[in-house]
Amino acid sequence: MDQKVLEEIRKIIPNDRILLQLQDRYSYSFDASFGEYLPDIVIQPEHAEEISRLVKLANRYLIPVYPRGAATSLSGGPLPVEGGMVLDMSRLNKKLIIDRENLLAIVSPGVITADIHRKAEEAGLFYPPDPSSSHVSTIGGNLLENSSGPRGLKYGTTKEYVIGLEVVTPTGDMIRTGGKTVKNVTGYDLTRLIVGSEGTLGIVTEAILRLIPKPQARGTLLAAFDRLVDSGHAITNILSSGILPAAMELMDNACMRAVENFQPCGLPLHAEALIIVEVDGHPIAVAEEISQCETLCLQMGATTIRVAQDERERQEIWKARKMVSPAITQMGPTKISEDATVPRSKIPDMMERLKQIREKYQLNLVVFGHAGDGNLHPNIITDKRNLAEMKRVEEAVSEIFKAAIELGGTLSGEHGIGTLKAPYMEMELGEIGLAMMKKIKQAWDPNNILNPGKIFPKPGQTKVVLTE
Amino acid sequence: MDQKVLEEIRKIIPNDRILLQLQDRYSYSFDASFGEYLPDIVIQPEHAEEISRLVKLANRYLIPVYPRGAATSLSGGPLPVEGGMVLDMSRLNKKLIIDRENLLAIVSPGVITADIHRKAEEAGLFYPPDPSSSHVSTIGGNLLENSSGPRGLKYGTTKEYVIGLEVVTPTGDMIRTGGKTVKNVTGYDLTRLIVGSEGTLGIVTEAILRLIPKPQARGTLLAAFDRLVDSGHAITNILSSGILPAAMELMDNACMRAVENFQPCGLPLHAEALIIVEVDGHPIAVAEEISQCETLCLQMGATTIRVAQDERERQEIWKARKMVSPAITQMGPTKISEDATVPRSKIPDMMERLKQIREKYQLNLVVFGHAGDGNLHPNIITDKRNLAEMKRVEEAVSEIFKAAIELGGTLSGEHGIGTLKAPYMEMELGEIGLAMMKKIKQAWDPNNILNPGKIFPKPGQTKVVLTE
Repeated sequence: MDQKVLEEIRKIIPNDRILLQLQDRYSYSFDASFGEYLPDIVIQPEHAEEISRLVKLANRYLIPVYPRGAATSLSGGPLPVEGGMVLDMSRLNKKLIIDRENLLAIVSPGVITADIHRKAEEAGLFYPPDPSSSHVSTIGGNLLENSSGPRGLKYGTTKEYVIGLEVVTPTGDMIRTGGKTVKNVTGYDLTRLIVGSEGTLGIVTEAILRLIPKPQARGTLLAAFDRLVDSGHAITNILSSGILPAAMELMDNACMRAVENFQPCGLPLHAEALIIVEVDGHPIAVAEEISQCETLCLQMGATTIRVAQDERERQEIWKARKMVSPAITQMGPTKISEDATVPRSKIPDMMERLKQIREKYQLNLVVFGHAGDGNLHPNIITDKRNLAEMKRVEEAVSEIFKAAIELGGTLSGEHGIGTLKAPYMEMELGEIGLAMMKKIKQAWDPNNILNPGKIFPKPGQTKVVLTE
Repeated sequence: MDQKVLEEIRKIIPNDRILLQLQDRYSYSFDASFGEYLPDIVIQPEHAEEISRLVKLANRYLIPVYPRGAATSLSGGPLPVEGGMVLDMSRLNKKLIIDRENLLAIVSPGVITADIHRKAEEAGLFYPPDPSSSHVSTIGGNLLENSSGPRGLKYGTTKEYVIGLEVVTPTGDMIRTGGKTVKNVTGYDLTRLIVGSEGTLGIVTEAILRLIPKPQARGTLLAAFDRLVDSGHAITNILSSGILPAAMELMDNACMRAVENFQPCGLPLHAEALIIVEVDGHPIAVAEEISQCETLCLQMGATTIRVAQDERERQEIWKARKMVSPAITQMGPTKISEDATVPRSKIPDMMERLKQIREKYQLNLVVFGHAGDGNLHPNIITDKRNLAEMKRVEEAVSEIFKAAIELGGTLSGEHGIGTLKAPYMEMELGEIGLAMMKKIKQAWDPNNILNPGKIFPKPGQTKVVLTE
């Protein structure tokens, strides 16, 4: 780090919140995705104003700036791929206000998402987005990646719950977007542009979230099917019956086996697929709907059905689902998580394509995900030291993306593009679509200071897993 | 119109879809807001490709382009304020596909919104956004203005239901944004940037809308209060009881009188305010919730309560609400419709401020609106030929905007900025916030071809109603 720059940084941030030692910087060199990149300096800001001054300085000296929440990103969101400055946002965690009258939460970016769930529920309210990592991930990271979890089907994505932001722009200015009203058409929707921009268009320093009344009751069932295709039909039939479940999750046989190896949950290992359906709302409606779902699953050939009789049994069903990610992590040293998303009706086709890819490349490919909204999570368990296998992984990942797009879907439903999917952007968006996005980035961040190396492919970049 | 340009236009569009006569052009010189501006030429395209070629030509010859749906805009959205070319989008109305399996509608921009409602409901589905004008307005206009109607409280705004677009960019390129999946984080959210951009960032040529299962039942009540403040408390208490109504509408005494004069509905004219509450969902839940709402209204001092016993009675209650706009139009030759929106808890304060403004400027100011989401519609009935009164109107409008912003609200909840609110943008957004929006416009539309004169104030522009 240049001494002159460092001196200027010290005028903004006290020494005990500036990390320069190799071991400290190393802790900030990775996330939950793939690859390691050492930053030159790590700073732990406590106020928006400090961030504003740091970004202005970064613009003056052309230093890359990488905001970082809890680093649970599966696409490389916070990775400091060009070195420079990491901003550890975890100390901006002081504000968590529930405004019951206006059904709002006002939060600092470093607040843990599960704490928002808890505080909202204490007030009889509900914040629906629930990424699997919500007990550790920060709301700031959730917003910038628009990571949403299982409730997208009924409740929409994270974006649908963000109505206002305080943001430090890529040139270090502070702006407020949106506000405290659900309806706001005063100019362009910068709120929704920044949410999901993966930290390339601004650093969120405060957010206003929309809450809804907490559903009075929940009903949950688990159904196992001998044939994957039957589980797909069960999902479709439930949706066309007029029921809109809060969640509809799918696990394949490989995921079940991984879970049972990791921590036995009594899953029916003979089954090819397992679905979890949860409905919520008025208690009478919930009871009626869950019974309808049970009937529909049986009609579609479910071999085992378990309906939760109380909250404990409900938690048990969800435990199996929540175990999937840690369980498959135990299967091998390297896990490549994708989240190719297809229109709901194409889930059986996508599952078939994934099966073909698994066989063609002889990989340990397991599939689970949010079947209700078409958001699948194919995971490849591998070992990055095995170069021959990694080459097959590279090709398999590429085929997964192609399959999703050919089926009318998208590269990423909620994990983000980051470093891992940048080379495939043009395949989905076309040259002009991608250029329209770049124009916004260039207009707002002419020096390419904010989270550089993300979303947009570098010229000639084609590989996503292998780094030559 | 320059002959050379006209000849080039004729290469793109046959003569019978090019309008040059004064009487034809005059028909396209106004909308439902304020002011008349004569375009140089009106074109009726039938395909996206024609629009793409026209916009490219407009960029070559620097001709302003004004897309126009049914021209029900209350903020001047389609007004050709700088002359040039109006694109009458009503012939792009061929596609209205309901994809039941994926809970989607795929629509052309010229389709009437009520036709989407009808077709969706025939398939057991539901498209929640419902602007008052939905029986005549086009979905293209609804999208570009993000106009939403009474169901924002429970179901969110129009934007929450648009997941994909086909768009002609300001430079005449065709792009697709988003897609058929609710979850999509592949790059920036251009869909939501273009929805609500008031036709300044692109012309929508096709849209993919998200549908939900049709609620099985609806319950509707009308409650009258002797004191406005009591109606405010009733609204707040219903919301904090855990009920999330599909709609919560408010009408002041002046609106009731206007309706009764126009078409008697038996409204309780002694009351200071009237609210309409509608809940929807499972029949048992609906019955229970509407009875709870009734109790809460009585506790808050409601003097009259009418609960709809069947669909006919429900329609009767809504008729009173839907009559408001036509009824007040009869009260005078000129109607200035605003839609200042405040956080829900500030509705009583805003109503008080509006009362003060009415008295201070001695104007015929009536108020109704979507109380559940804080979206009020103060309307001033006046006569644009009465210059003395119009000066008072100008000042009153300015004070309405100031009051909304001071109470933490916004200039516009759903009508858009257009020409009528442009001078107040900086008051809400600040200089930098506005500049960030301008940067996007400039990056995408360097020649300022698409709907120029909207959203962004001209240098020194301060008046909104008076045009000196």
